[in-house]
Amino acid sequence: MAKIVVVGLGPGGLSQMTGEAMEALRDSGVIAGYDLYIDLIRGAFPEKRFLSTPMRKEVDRCRLAVEEALKGNTVAMVCSGDAGVYGMAGLIYEVAEQMGEIEIEVVPGVTAALSGAAVLGAPLIHDFAVISLSDLLTPWELIEKRIRLAAEGDFVLCFYNPSSKKRFDYLRKACGLILAHRAPETPAGIVRNIGREGQESRVMTLAELRDTPVDMFTTVFVGNSRTKVIGGKMVTPRGYKGVTID
Amino acid sequence: MAKIVVVGLGPGGLSQMTGEAMEALRDSGVIAGYDLYIDLIRGAFPEKRFLSTPMRKEVDRCRLAVEEALKGNTVAMVCSGDAGVYGMAGLIYEVAEQMGEIEIEVVPGVTAALSGAAVLGAPLIHDFAVISLSDLLTPWELIEKRIRLAAEGDFVLCFYNPSSKKRFDYLRKACGLILAHRAPETPAGIVRNIGREGQESRVMTLAELRDTPVDMFTTVFVGNSRTKVIGGKMVTPRGYKGVTID
Repeated sequence: MAKIVVVGLGPGGLSQMTGEAMEALRDSGVIAGYDLYIDLIRGAFPEKRFLSTPMRKEVDRCRLAVEEALKGNTVAMVCSGDAGVYGMAGLIYEVAEQMGEIEIEVVPGVTAALSGAAVLGAPLIHDFAVISLSDLLTPWELIEKRIRLAAEGDFVLCFYNPSSKKRFDYLRKACGLILAHRAPETPAGIVRNIGREGQESRVMTLAELRDTPVDMFTTVFVGNSRTKVIGGKMVTPRGYKGVTID
Repeated sequence: MAKIVVVGLGPGGLSQMTGEAMEALRDSGVIAGYDLYIDLIRGAFPEKRFLSTPMRKEVDRCRLAVEEALKGNTVAMVCSGDAGVYGMAGLIYEVAEQMGEIEIEVVPGVTAALSGAAVLGAPLIHDFAVISLSDLLTPWELIEKRIRLAAEGDFVLCFYNPSSKKRFDYLRKACGLILAHRAPETPAGIVRNIGREGQESRVMTLAELRDTPVDMFTTVFVGNSRTKVIGGKMVTPRGYKGVTID
């Protein structure tokens, strides 16, 4: 049967892919994906056929991949990070449902919440919420509501798509909402170009984060009420009962 | 300088580790961790020295690892999934701070939220909250509050540690709280022994989930108000504005 494997590449370099993901690419006839991600892996698979499409054309990209699969090719659709976190995995199911019978498999990868956390220390050791600040497909009112509720629940917060040219002040607004529930000294952190050339990171306070400009290649973290800074790293304790080290 | 690398192994098999994680184990002099995780990798590294400890002895395990590092060994501390999500990465920072100067590096892995989601389809395509139902170190009242707030915010929900002998009814309670905000037909799913022998999964409704017994090897997912079932898989759309496929 026609088959698509939706593969999460992890943050960047080939060494951050799982063995299973590497194998899925090796076993595929065609590799499809956004230009930038294709460029990350093209060198390692010189014999493959690639279908690359520009950004923002996600539905077209999925249709192209499903068409290829329906011709009898095993298609690997690649995504940065994890294909199931703001990735193409869902859209492939939705598009394939309309186009024909194909087998779909999702191979997970290391999403930016995990790879970014590892750079900053250990911010996600306790309950956390992942929120995209992009309002392309989600009303800003719902995004604000989620930030408020997650802040009230003392979740560690991780923001994807924290900014763009049009949305330069969204992270500032988000920090304002969190500051209604959390101290300005709460540890926060940003990581840019995770696992890629030019990786940069910084641990700061929530108050500083509010005044820090970020771009769309940045993932943002805000600690919970117990998160502390140890040796320049963000560290969230395992719980709330008494001291952590007992 | 003395060094500890905290390594996330992913859900189970060696092929679900990243290349970077594999390399960190190869480069280490000693591999430390909980018995069960050590057993997963022992065969692949016959020449290594292993320090394995029983469960629930996390602080002792970290102290042992830091002591080894302070002797000049490069120690890899392994965790299932991702070391930074309810894992040992945070505790290593906390313990090391008290014991001496060592370098700490975290190598991320595929946590159960991602590997379980891939088995069920694509439930995490939009904003999500990860909550542990274990009240060993967190008051149950705070866990309840988080479930209520995340349900109100229409986050996709992912539960770790959904049950144990003493806490057999916690998932039932959690579903009750979610049902105050979400329809009983909301798609939900469970995955047991992700990536290991005997992997099992099931997609069902939130109402059915409430009456489903689960064990501590299970990861649980509850969709948001837009999540649907396509060909037996849980699929969350990319957003809320109009139709998803435009």
